[in-house]
Amino acid sequence: MRFIEKLDNACRINKSLLCVGLDIDLAKIPPHLLNSDDPIFTFNKAIIDATNDLVCAYKPNIAFFERYGIYGLESLIRTIEYVPKNIPVILDAKRGDIGTSSMAYAKAVFEVYKADAVTVNPYMGQDSIEPFMEYQEKGIFVLALTSNVGSLDFQALKNQESEPLYISVVKKAVEWDQYKNLGLVVGATNAQHLKDIRKIAPDMPILIPGIGTQGGNLEASVKNGVNPDNLRAIINASRSIIYAGKDQGFAKDCRDAAQKLRDEINRHRKIL
Amino acid sequence: MRFIEKLDNACRINKSLLCVGLDIDLAKIPPHLLNSDDPIFTFNKAIIDATNDLVCAYKPNIAFFERYGIYGLESLIRTIEYVPKNIPVILDAKRGDIGTSSMAYAKAVFEVYKADAVTVNPYMGQDSIEPFMEYQEKGIFVLALTSNVGSLDFQALKNQESEPLYISVVKKAVEWDQYKNLGLVVGATNAQHLKDIRKIAPDMPILIPGIGTQGGNLEASVKNGVNPDNLRAIINASRSIIYAGKDQGFAKDCRDAAQKLRDEINRHRKIL
Repeated sequence: MRFIEKLDNACRINKSLLCVGLDIDLAKIPPHLLNSDDPIFTFNKAIIDATNDLVCAYKPNIAFFERYGIYGLESLIRTIEYVPKNIPVILDAKRGDIGTSSMAYAKAVFEVYKADAVTVNPYMGQDSIEPFMEYQEKGIFVLALTSNVGSLDFQALKNQESEPLYISVVKKAVEWDQYKNLGLVVGATNAQHLKDIRKIAPDMPILIPGIGTQGGNLEASVKNGVNPDNLRAIINASRSIIYAGKDQGFAKDCRDAAQKLRDEINRHRKIL
Repeated sequence: MRFIEKLDNACRINKSLLCVGLDIDLAKIPPHLLNSDDPIFTFNKAIIDATNDLVCAYKPNIAFFERYGIYGLESLIRTIEYVPKNIPVILDAKRGDIGTSSMAYAKAVFEVYKADAVTVNPYMGQDSIEPFMEYQEKGIFVLALTSNVGSLDFQALKNQESEPLYISVVKKAVEWDQYKNLGLVVGATNAQHLKDIRKIAPDMPILIPGIGTQGGNLEASVKNGVNPDNLRAIINASRSIIYAGKDQGFAKDCRDAAQKLRDEINRHRKIL
């Protein structure tokens, strides 16, 4: 099944636009888990068990696993494998390189880690993204406007037609999208920008990080992010969900946090 | 020792600006190596043994290792560990993410893989690069102008002062370089652009891919790339060196190719 169908199905069945970011940090997980054979996987398994009927996707950021070396990447593979088949996994990896290198990255992302979708960096242009797109069943989310302060350094630079770089990126992504498997990453930190982007890409899935810990406006993100079918906005929250609990009962706390956010998102899109 | 000193020392002692790119491909290595326990490492070890007195750096691109999964990354770690301590290793990884994620990537690059330097992508701005820079002994090469066709899509876009994006990136890199550990990546495909960049960043190390297989002009790259001390241009060649030989004697062929290119580079910078 194509990524976009899997995503839409998960959104409908779980009545959810919530994506839970699996940003593992051994210093933050409940201490009793550190005694297990594979604390990273044990923690993620508990999160997935507690939330998989509440989410439209999971988004592990590979950086947080790679930090723990080979062991961390093995736990990443186990984690992705454990996610129920009806829930897509977006590997947040922000890859991009010249053609042959991007082919190798695409192979790693889709065949080694077995993700359903990936985030990519547009700086190196079309031929750096094409090898990912060639996996036509997969989803490829192009960074457009990110939620960090540094997004102002280059993404906001205006060209000679007064168009900021992130808009040029969005327009190119729409132009390149021959297999209808591209999406965008747009931070929740500026509601008007998200609105502008949604107009240019009316039906692309938009991954929206920056809610919660990063302080983005949820209501505006939902309203400006969804497509005309009230779908295709993927609202990511990571730390505010997965570290909601600190002790033995953490999975329940995590579920409660996910349910609360899912329901709040649904109220903003008038789905009750 | 700081990366830049290690680099300058290697350039001087080996009389070389040649960087050999370790872009492993099991379909291209001499077939008899496939029977060894760890063909990737066995091949790289032979390349390193044959060339370490001829190069100023090695540049493994992590994509080519990650493609082979956990095994490939284990071989990457063994490879980097095997490089003689006087030769710096630049891990070509093109990383970049928001602060906490970049911190995790930096930890992976410098503490798990134990590289001396890394390539990073500037699209997400200063705070995405800072966590790498905080490793003050390490080198951080910011992508400025790449050697692929897609570099025209965004890197060449001009702002309202008619300045292309890659020049804005170079200027910002110079501004951010508080620890004097930044470098640039500039493809060999346009000699004038390299000249313009060297003017703005007179002393930064510039990693120059795109020689050989990608068709860049060697003479112009050397002349326009070096700093006033005839150093700091790192001329990378990958496939044209490491796959120069096909059979039992491949390491000698590889050494011959490296020596020829090193000497040609030296002729262009008038060092004989």
